Amino acid sequence: MNILVCNGPNLNLLGTREPNVYGSQTLREIEEELLLKFPEASLTFFQSNHEGAIIDALQSTIGKHFDGVVINPGAFTHYSYAIRDCIAAISIPVIEIHLSNIHLREKFRRTSVLAPVCMAQISGFGAASYAVAVEMLLYHLSKQKI
Amino acid sequence: MNILVCNGPNLNLLGTREPNVYGSQTLREIEEELLLKFPEASLTFFQSNHEGAIIDALQSTIGKHFDGVVINPGAFTHYSYAIRDCIAAISIPVIEIHLSNIHLREKFRRTSVLAPVCMAQISGFGAASYAVAVEMLLYHLSKQKI
Amino acid sequence: MNILVCNGPNLNLLGTREPNVYGSQTLREIEEELLLKFPEASLTFFQSNHEGAIIDALQSTIGKHFDGVVINPGAFTHYSYAIRDCIAAISIPVIEIHLSNIHLREKFRRTSVLAPVCMAQISGFGAASYAVAVEMLLYHLSKQKI
Amino acid sequence: MNILVCNGPNLNLLGTREPNVYGSQTLREIEEELLLKFPEASLTFFQSNHEGAIIDALQSTIGKHFDGVVINPGAFTHYSYAIRDCIAAISIPVIEIHLSNIHLREKFRRTSVLAPVCMAQISGFGAASYAVAVEMLLYHLSKQKI
Amino acid sequence: MNILVCNGPNLNLLGTREPNVYGSQTLREIEEELLLKFPEASLTFFQSNHEGAIIDALQSTIGKHFDGVVINPGAFTHYSYAIRDCIAAISIPVIEIHLSNIHLREKFRRTSVLAPVCMAQISGFGAASYAVAVEMLLYHLSKQKI
Amino acid sequence: MNILVCNGPNLNLLGTREPNVYGSQTLREIEEELLLKFPEASLTFFQSNHEGAIIDALQSTIGKHFDGVVINPGAFTHYSYAIRDCIAAISIPVIEIHLSNIHLREKFRRTSVLAPVCMAQISGFGAASYAVAVEMLLYHLSKQKI
Amino acid sequence: MNILVCNGPNLNLLGTREPNVYGSQTLREIEEELLLKFPEASLTFFQSNHEGAIIDALQSTIGKHFDGVVINPGAFTHYSYAIRDCIAAISIPVIEIHLSNIHLREKFRRTSVLAPVCMAQISGFGAASYAVAVEMLLYHLSKQKI
Amino acid sequence: MNILVCNGPNLNLLGTREPNVYGSQTLREIEEELLLKFPEASLTFFQSNHEGAIIDALQSTIGKHFDGVVINPGAFTHYSYAIRDCIAAISIPVIEIHLSNIHLREKFRRTSVLAPVCMAQISGFGAASYAVAVEMLLYHLSKQKI
Amino acid sequence: MNILVCNGPNLNLLGTREPNVYGSQTLREIEEELLLKFPEASLTFFQSNHEGAIIDALQSTIGKHFDGVVINPGAFTHYSYAIRDCIAAISIPVIEIHLSNIHLREKFRRTSVLAPVCMAQISGFGAASYAVAVEMLLYHLSKQKI
Amino acid sequence: MNILVCNGPNLNLLGTREPNVYGSQTLREIEEELLLKFPEASLTFFQSNHEGAIIDALQSTIGKHFDGVVINPGAFTHYSYAIRDCIAAISIPVIEIHLSNIHLREKFRRTSVLAPVCMAQISGFGAASYAVAVEMLLYHLSKQKI
Amino acid sequence: MNILVCNGPNLNLLGTREPNVYGSQTLREIEEELLLKFPEASLTFFQSNHEGAIIDALQSTIGKHFDGVVINPGAFTHYSYAIRDCIAAISIPVIEIHLSNIHLREKFRRTSVLAPVCMAQISGFGAASYAVAVEMLLYHLSKQKI
Amino acid sequence: MNILVCNGPNLNLLGTREPNVYGSQTLREIEEELLLKFPEASLTFFQSNHEGAIIDALQSTIGKHFDGVVINPGAFTHYSYAIRDCIAAISIPVIEIHLSNIHLREKFRRTSVLAPVCMAQISGFGAASYAVAVEMLLYHLSKQKI
Repeated sequence: MNILVCNGPNLNLLGTREPNVYGSQTLREIEEELLLKFPEASLTFFQSNHEGAIIDALQSTIGKHFDGVVINPGAFTHYSYAIRDCIAAISIPVIEIHLSNIHLREKFRRTSVLAPVCMAQISGFGAASYAVAVEMLLYHLSKQKI
Repeated sequence: MNILVCNGPNLNLLGTREPNVYGSQTLREIEEELLLKFPEASLTFFQSNHEGAIIDALQSTIGKHFDGVVINPGAFTHYSYAIRDCIAAISIPVIEIHLSNIHLREKFRRTSVLAPVCMAQISGFGAASYAVAVEMLLYHLSKQKI
Repeated sequence: MNILVCNGPNLNLLGTREPNVYGSQTLREIEEELLLKFPEASLTFFQSNHEGAIIDALQSTIGKHFDGVVINPGAFTHYSYAIRDCIAAISIPVIEIHLSNIHLREKFRRTSVLAPVCMAQISGFGAASYAVAVEMLLYHLSKQKI
Repeated sequence: MNILVCNGPNLNLLGTREPNVYGSQTLREIEEELLLKFPEASLTFFQSNHEGAIIDALQSTIGKHFDGVVINPGAFTHYSYAIRDCIAAISIPVIEIHLSNIHLREKFRRTSVLAPVCMAQISGFGAASYAVAVEMLLYHLSKQKI
Repeated sequence: MNILVCNGPNLNLLGTREPNVYGSQTLREIEEELLLKFPEASLTFFQSNHEGAIIDALQSTIGKHFDGVVINPGAFTHYSYAIRDCIAAISIPVIEIHLSNIHLREKFRRTSVLAPVCMAQISGFGAASYAVAVEMLLYHLSKQKI
Repeated sequence: MNILVCNGPNLNLLGTREPNVYGSQTLREIEEELLLKFPEASLTFFQSNHEGAIIDALQSTIGKHFDGVVINPGAFTHYSYAIRDCIAAISIPVIEIHLSNIHLREKFRRTSVLAPVCMAQISGFGAASYAVAVEMLLYHLSKQKI
Repeated sequence: MNILVCNGPNLNLLGTREPNVYGSQTLREIEEELLLKFPEASLTFFQSNHEGAIIDALQSTIGKHFDGVVINPGAFTHYSYAIRDCIAAISIPVIEIHLSNIHLREKFRRTSVLAPVCMAQISGFGAASYAVAVEMLLYHLSKQKI
Repeated sequence: MNILVCNGPNLNLLGTREPNVYGSQTLREIEEELLLKFPEASLTFFQSNHEGAIIDALQSTIGKHFDGVVINPGAFTHYSYAIRDCIAAISIPVIEIHLSNIHLREKFRRTSVLAPVCMAQISGFGAASYAVAVEMLLYHLSKQKI
Repeated sequence: MNILVCNGPNLNLLGTREPNVYGSQTLREIEEELLLKFPEASLTFFQSNHEGAIIDALQSTIGKHFDGVVINPGAFTHYSYAIRDCIAAISIPVIEIHLSNIHLREKFRRTSVLAPVCMAQISGFGAASYAVAVEMLLYHLSKQKI
Repeated sequence: MNILVCNGPNLNLLGTREPNVYGSQTLREIEEELLLKFPEASLTFFQSNHEGAIIDALQSTIGKHFDGVVINPGAFTHYSYAIRDCIAAISIPVIEIHLSNIHLREKFRRTSVLAPVCMAQISGFGAASYAVAVEMLLYHLSKQKI
Repeated sequence: MNILVCNGPNLNLLGTREPNVYGSQTLREIEEELLLKFPEASLTFFQSNHEGAIIDALQSTIGKHFDGVVINPGAFTHYSYAIRDCIAAISIPVIEIHLSNIHLREKFRRTSVLAPVCMAQISGFGAASYAVAVEMLLYHLSKQKI
Repeated sequence: MNILVCNGPNLNLLGTREPNVYGSQTLREIEEELLLKFPEASLTFFQSNHEGAIIDALQSTIGKHFDGVVINPGAFTHYSYAIRDCIAAISIPVIEIHLSNIHLREKFRRTSVLAPVCMAQISGFGAASYAVAVEMLLYHLSKQKI
């Protein structure tokens, strides 16, 4: 199983900025935990502050034996219709995750323009959200493979 | 660990109605799977079509050694401020779940008046949503107990 | 033909309260007139001020040889998404009725969250609305039975 | 009893266009059925695609011994304040009908600017809506005549 | 003077939950204070988390020599059109109270669908709101009796 | 000075319908008073329930020595963008009048889509509105002619 | 006939500021023309930039043999509910005037919070608006006096 | 205890204007009743139609041993953000009162821009509102003084 | 190929009114250019200021060997749901055109209630819009005919 | 250079109230700093809680050799269309300032009805806002004088 | 004639993704057809998923003898005010195209923030949209060159 | 003091495009003036049309002894929640500037999604805005350093 774990703008600052809000783990530490926890999966990690680069990365899953995507789109969640079109265009399942419960924050954070084209959404479990999403994706894919 | 798994209106019809939408498992089958999967947890199940009965059930966790709640509020998600007040009043963590990706359905289903007082929200994994929620709750509680 | 005639909150006060607005017939008198007018139909009557009890009653039509429902939802018309889900879940036709022309009253009374899942809607004929609805339901069902 | 049965724009196409939506009966066939079903009533039929012509027709009921109007306003339902003023100006009762359940269709079809000045509204019974409206009008008028 | 003091959902938790917000008095203590303070009045107390049960209680004042109602509707304030219809249907005066200043809290708490059918509204005096309401009701009723 | 006095839908009913609201003068009587009051002006009168006929009449002022228009658009005031375009296209001044103070009536009557393309607006003087408008128009035109 | 002619904020600048918009006549010149034109009336003039002073002036008409008021409220037109309450409280007729056609200007100028409590409204005739208003007021009062 | 009882625009007309709406007591009579009823309190009365004068009065409580304010802001309730800022700036408690149930009147009266900065709000008890407010203020202050 | 070129209200004034906005060509000249440019097509021209007449014309294409329609609906674009229903009812392709770029004009011109039932929309090419629409229609039809 | 530095309601409380929000400088201290910092300018200071008094002050700049205005309108920023009209009427440049960043505060503070008629707007620099505004005004005026 | 044909995000997937929606032609095939069809024009092709890269490309037309631009902005159509500013800044004509009729799709696709700064807009002709746009651009430019 | 002066999309065109709107200075000339005017500061300049590149640049201030940022975000002002999150994440002060008074331009330019996380905002001083911002930043920082 090949899975792309994709992170949007400012998530490279995880752990070093506002640890009381986003936790003290860096993105690298989260990624290393995922590698240890899911040895049977082939995980590819990608982070960018560039909307176009994220679209390029998502498109690159086409024809390269990727089976699914876990994406934390950061602020692009709220306005990137270009990423939305891209998710709709690639045929593998995509799970959208958020570290915090987005319903507890500013109003503009409560709308996701990506949710209608994703398979499922998880929010509020902090860094553990990544592991839950990968686990569910593996479970979902294993059922499909049979 | 004592967990209340609480279901709102019409969820007693699961499996027998519109299986193409909500899956072919009955609520009882889902509950039995949870018992098998989490033998270490003490799970209490409750379902009602009555808003007041759900509030009574949630209040009954006070002073009875409950550690957390998993709730699928059904249509009450969208207008029951009374359940919202109740969740805010009890001090144990509550996870809100939905079988389907509510962002793909009618507009009124995209607003949850409960989300701002819940710890986290999961949607779109079908019947597996219950297991994910219980697992995350156990994980969250075990960290707190230390 | 088995038909459930279901009434929502405060309709038990019909005839004794505000007769200039709602007419001087009691709910019981209306029900007795229906029994006389439709001897060929088997009519079951139900009234409750409890949203959950109405959902229970509607669900009870499943597997019990009911052929249709006439419902005057009272104020639940305007916010009970739980009753809406229930009507959508049972497969027999449901006709929504209102004694008064709801378009002539306060603004909140002009929106029905139930209408999109009902077969038809009648409003403004006073107590006669019940008879029209039963007659149309019998006519509709007789066509289907052929 | 003299009744005007009035139809708005595009209803002259009934039966020949989109029969799966609007039924296979032509407007003429519906009118002939009404004549057979209500031999005691004097029915006058009128259809036009012109808003002004419908207002002229409604005004022509003044001083000509008409007792009531059944109107299917078609798309004028949603924006013709001129027809609304006209209905308010004539003193005989007017019943508004729609073939389909307008609450199940596009959003703009859910608002009727005419409803507040009509005696009652019926929607969702297909071609049978006309007969129900005439019957209720005759019943209502007979009570008034006493 | 017979007065019904009626409390909505979650108010049975008063005093034991969030005392910094709602005060440390239990509902029972508040009720006992009212009995001491108004020995001349006959006070009946009722609390329920069920919307239907509150409607039943309000309807039960009809024909039973009740002179007025003090109601703290809790979260039902914001969406129960069924309770609104019930208050409008019973002919005795009803005073709506709130412990906290609802204008200082979440936006949805600033709208009361009940206020237009109540005689008066009091908010922001904490547990003392009950006594003020009973006192004003007695004063109002004594003037009417003359 | 040639002036077109143009009236929209249902104004032909003036005086015979709802005299307590619109006064007891017929449109013909109003027109005759105008002829007596302004012998120096050449007044042309037009009334129609047809939006298209009103546009035709307004367009007919082009190239026919008309100097101005007084229009009471009736219900077309609120939605006829076609009449608006027509008023904008003809180069002579147009004054919009209303018999009643439209700010005192239903909400939809408070918006005029024509006002932005008219020279001035008068409302609330009853039948005298016509005379005020003609007088002001003559005054305005006489200043221009110099 | 005693009439108060009342002007709101910035109208003391008339004639000296933006003559292309508001005309070249000063407020004093307008007032003198009114005195010449209506020798039979007793006119009292008042102008202030203070909302409270205008309310004081309007209240001063009580018990002092005033028969009517002509008011150009300036910008207070759009938000002074205090002046609105005052106009509603005094029982003599009030006519609201505006020099320019307020419907041709910024959006906030199109709403008058005073209009619902005034007898009539005139806009778009420049300085002539005052004379029209006084004339209409005298005409209206003379009919009442009979 | 020193308390400022402050009244906004048009309240000086109480008793002499629309007694069926606002009661037949004058403001002076209400004030005298308050003096008799609360001999232990030092009450200062103030009324003005000027927004600025009310702000000056409220500011004057600073440094002058005032303990609280009862304010009936009249129409300023709905738009005076300047009074709101002033109430927020002075540190003593302020209670907002209204004679009538503002929820039963025009829509613009249902919004109070002052409520979020006041301690509590009372409406619908007529002239008795003043006494209730003073009583509650004394009670609240006496608890604080301990 | 038979094509109906249909024009709505005020377009008969093209070329003679506001040439700087709409160009100096008359509608007749535009029509003659189309005849010269598309000799292989059979073009029928229609213009009316009457909404009903346009519906009649569109309906007349049924059963008369018309292959497509080019319509410039003028101001009817923004509110004629009756024309919308008619376009939806006829089965041949319809292209909506506008002379000017409607996105650059007043806000109400940016909404087309017809666009959802048309095959395509063109705006901003001036009189050339007609030729582009006819050319695209012929191209589209020739592909279908094969 | 003569400059009017004008302050609105409650700004006379600067320094003594909520120093953590508005800083500890009094208005007088700010004014004295401005005098020291700009010896070449002739500064006139004005503060009032009265909207009308501010309009009087602004109007007084006409014909008195004032070259510009710096205004901190306080809460009048959000609703005083009367001050707006006054600013538009005087021909010298006006700069609007706010101590705090109004975009960070309550929603109603984010709208300025004055901004469209001011030359520029400054917010967020605390007491330094005054000096920046005076400096920019002097710079702007010196360029114009050349 | 030098023309830049510019494509936004996800258009590089044309032909290989969802051919039933977007057609089976690849972007390269469309570009080659354009080269064959317009040998007299010098066409430059550009595609990027990066908003910034598209702005760079558009800016690069300055000073490089480009005569016009055809742009299919993809999802950037709906929110890229940065591209809008860029189009406004370059002085050559830009035509906006869309493969599908954007008015028939999701609501967010019906708003183009670019349209107000483009010369014209074409939508609904599939891949033929490119050729139409180039042809119209050449026609427009040839007229300007004369 | 190290300050990053950051410019968003299309600002590299300053001086060469629309000089009547944006002035005739190029961005380079503005930057050189800043270097001359503030020799005591260490200024770093950055401009990009890429949203991601601006985020990278802002993030690069972390750990590199930058003391503050001046940003002219261009059109990103209105929709880039990603830049907003980035500004919120870096702990040094950021000042948002605009050359023109954005309140005088199109409606979408009046909303800044960045303003709530910036220290201050300046608009309407043309190219001088940069110098004002740097000066204020230095002043602010010097106070903090003490």
